[in-house]
Amino acid sequence: MQDLHATRLALRAGQTSARTEMAHSVAVAGSPACAHAFTRPLFEAAGTEAERAGSGLPLAGLAFSAKDLFDIEGQPTPAGSQVLSHAPAARADAVAVARLRAAGGALIGRTNMTEFAFSGVGVNPHHGTPANAADATTPRIPGGSSSGAAVSVATGAAFIGLGSDTGGSIRIPAALNGIVGFKSTAQLVPADGALPLSTTLDTVCAMTRSVRDAVTAHEILAARRVGLTDAPLASYRVAVVTNTFFDGIEAPVDTAFHNALRQLRTAGARIEEITLPPLADLASINVTGGFSAAEAYAWHRLLLERSGAGYDPRVAQRILKGAGMKAHEYIDLVQARRGWIARMEAALAPFDAVLSPTVPITAPPIANVAPGAERDDEFFRVNGLLLRNPSVVNMLDGCAISLPCPVDGGLPVGLMLWHAALHDDVVLSLALQIEQALQNA
Amino acid sequence: MQDLHATRLALRAGQTSARTEMAHSVAVAGSPACAHAFTRPLFEAAGTEAERAGSGLPLAGLAFSAKDLFDIEGQPTPAGSQVLSHAPAARADAVAVARLRAAGGALIGRTNMTEFAFSGVGVNPHHGTPANAADATTPRIPGGSSSGAAVSVATGAAFIGLGSDTGGSIRIPAALNGIVGFKSTAQLVPADGALPLSTTLDTVCAMTRSVRDAVTAHEILAARRVGLTDAPLASYRVAVVTNTFFDGIEAPVDTAFHNALRQLRTAGARIEEITLPPLADLASINVTGGFSAAEAYAWHRLLLERSGAGYDPRVAQRILKGAGMKAHEYIDLVQARRGWIARMEAALAPFDAVLSPTVPITAPPIANVAPGAERDDEFFRVNGLLLRNPSVVNMLDGCAISLPCPVDGGLPVGLMLWHAALHDDVVLSLALQIEQALQNA
Repeated sequence: MQDLHATRLALRAGQTSARTEMAHSVAVAGSPACAHAFTRPLFEAAGTEAERAGSGLPLAGLAFSAKDLFDIEGQPTPAGSQVLSHAPAARADAVAVARLRAAGGALIGRTNMTEFAFSGVGVNPHHGTPANAADATTPRIPGGSSSGAAVSVATGAAFIGLGSDTGGSIRIPAALNGIVGFKSTAQLVPADGALPLSTTLDTVCAMTRSVRDAVTAHEILAARRVGLTDAPLASYRVAVVTNTFFDGIEAPVDTAFHNALRQLRTAGARIEEITLPPLADLASINVTGGFSAAEAYAWHRLLLERSGAGYDPRVAQRILKGAGMKAHEYIDLVQARRGWIARMEAALAPFDAVLSPTVPITAPPIANVAPGAERDDEFFRVNGLLLRNPSVVNMLDGCAISLPCPVDGGLPVGLMLWHAALHDDVVLSLALQIEQALQNA
Repeated sequence: MQDLHATRLALRAGQTSARTEMAHSVAVAGSPACAHAFTRPLFEAAGTEAERAGSGLPLAGLAFSAKDLFDIEGQPTPAGSQVLSHAPAARADAVAVARLRAAGGALIGRTNMTEFAFSGVGVNPHHGTPANAADATTPRIPGGSSSGAAVSVATGAAFIGLGSDTGGSIRIPAALNGIVGFKSTAQLVPADGALPLSTTLDTVCAMTRSVRDAVTAHEILAARRVGLTDAPLASYRVAVVTNTFFDGIEAPVDTAFHNALRQLRTAGARIEEITLPPLADLASINVTGGFSAAEAYAWHRLLLERSGAGYDPRVAQRILKGAGMKAHEYIDLVQARRGWIARMEAALAPFDAVLSPTVPITAPPIANVAPGAERDDEFFRVNGLLLRNPSVVNMLDGCAISLPCPVDGGLPVGLMLWHAALHDDVVLSLALQIEQALQNA
């Protein structure tokens, strides 16, 4: 499947047209592969936008999708819920949506998500759960919370899936569907017009089909140029963190990850195994509940009182954990995070980036974790495993990209490359090298 | 009494020496006028520092004092308390202290303060209360929390009184003692090595004997050059806020303030009366307790459990109000403040600065508010009046300078010039013009 970059070249060469591309996107988006991927299709409007977009613009009328939590002028912003499905219409596009449209993107639809973005599994009891794009036989979880965004990009319905990442919500579905997800440093992209989960940890970002498209999407969302370097793979000093990140890892993920390391070393990469002692502090730092529950509860409190019965019970349960947290515990958490970031940054300073498995498992069947109290234990077990690795980067206020690890016919496995805040350009430059090296191997 | 600027000129002209100046500072600091002003005199060390400082440095060996909450290498940092008087010694100077020393300042002593900086009155039950420098007959409150800092500067013991301002702790004592206090935008001066009251509202800043000295002190503390303009007074558009700021004002303050306005108008100032509707929202925004109590409680919780009986009961009572606040209330407060700042900034945008009485009262006798439960009601009434005007600027994340209003033999009255964050240079430039205009009137 062509990425945005290749499609732009084909457009310039006259080998395709924006209309043809949009017709293909809409056909895929309306096909069974995208069942439940969209909470609100905007196929007709997308066609009009595609026709109107200048071919000189970066997105040239090609399709992008937007997670259901982004404001789109004239529509309510339900964020995957039912309780907000009749909320007042947004009076303007979210900044991220406006930037993609201004860059020539045609919005093909609002994508499904975990209700209010509060889980990494991607199951939604109101809209149904979109099936993972990588397995046509067994319906598997797409990962979340940006579930529909991933399916829209992996199936070919959209070139860019706009989403958000609070603890892995871009990178988890990217890894499980075999595409690229880049969570930039949070401060680089305005969150205006995005319904928040955790104002401390939320990042507005996107999924794409290649690393070079991730660069383009980020440049549009952040309204800045990325300083890419063409330094060779061998010039980077890369770490693999051996503690925490491999706990509970499934054999196929472990195999794929270590095969990739071997391939990268063969291509010249200098990779060192390290331990990161501060990782052991995370549990005690978050013992009073963490940011997401407290900040989500602050946002949802009145809505829960009014319409709590309409919430996904698994989501309501997690938000309600924020109710009991004291202000001084929250303040301690803010301070503890600051100290933890300083210790992590000191430990990571000698390295250009860290390589980890994005998540330690491949996508389980939806049936295992589908709505139903009898599957809650399994749901929360899977959710914990999916969030564990990516959420380290959100606590770090850092940046991370998940790109596909070569797998020999098995389910997709994600390779996460990450570092602290504002290392985005080095991470993206190195990710381009890694993508190349793994494709050549 | 000469300011730093004039003394520097005299030094350069050979009319005085750093040794002579330090001898004078030490004599004053050791005199009855400075009784209780210092929690720990450092006269001998200051003499050595004064001898060593190069005459080319901005402070040229002249005396500065540091509020008892700043780390000084080798000493505990009790912050006006007894419970921390035997705390471990600081391993380095606070950044602000280090910067003043690097600029040639000689540290003459640690100054007395409201215990843990938590009141605007300046009464301290452990170290005694320094008497206001403006009245040699009736001992009056110095204002707080930087009580000793103000007395050290107003009596002539120090040219710069390093302190902190969370709700007025620099500007209140400056106003009540008839000197200058500049609270910069908080982010401009690092708070490292300062024992916190409210991490959200604290500002490290200083008192001086003139506005030009305030510029110098700020340039040293912020390690930056202030962009002063010599635009004439008539080129500024100045507002006077008529709501809230004059409630409960005493006649001498009202008279002095309006006389000053008249003098400034005669000198060409364009001053408009406005109302600021967002001020009416402050009470409801802070209804769950505000930043200082919650953030102080987070810092003091364990110390209060261990040593609560050793606290000033008035301070402990205020800190303990933070114990019950919920995380979601604190998060709501953070969000509400953000919205309030945006509304305030929009309302202030047409103006270069706002003029207000720094505080609505002159310094009452210490006897009225001295330690003792029977005077608590009066203490808290006075405290509320003192904090009300200055604390608006801390909530705004803004900047403000208090300079003396001409008074005809009466107690000092402060004129506060203020605006939103990062308007520091305009506020300082205009304050120079105002100081000049009032002195010429």
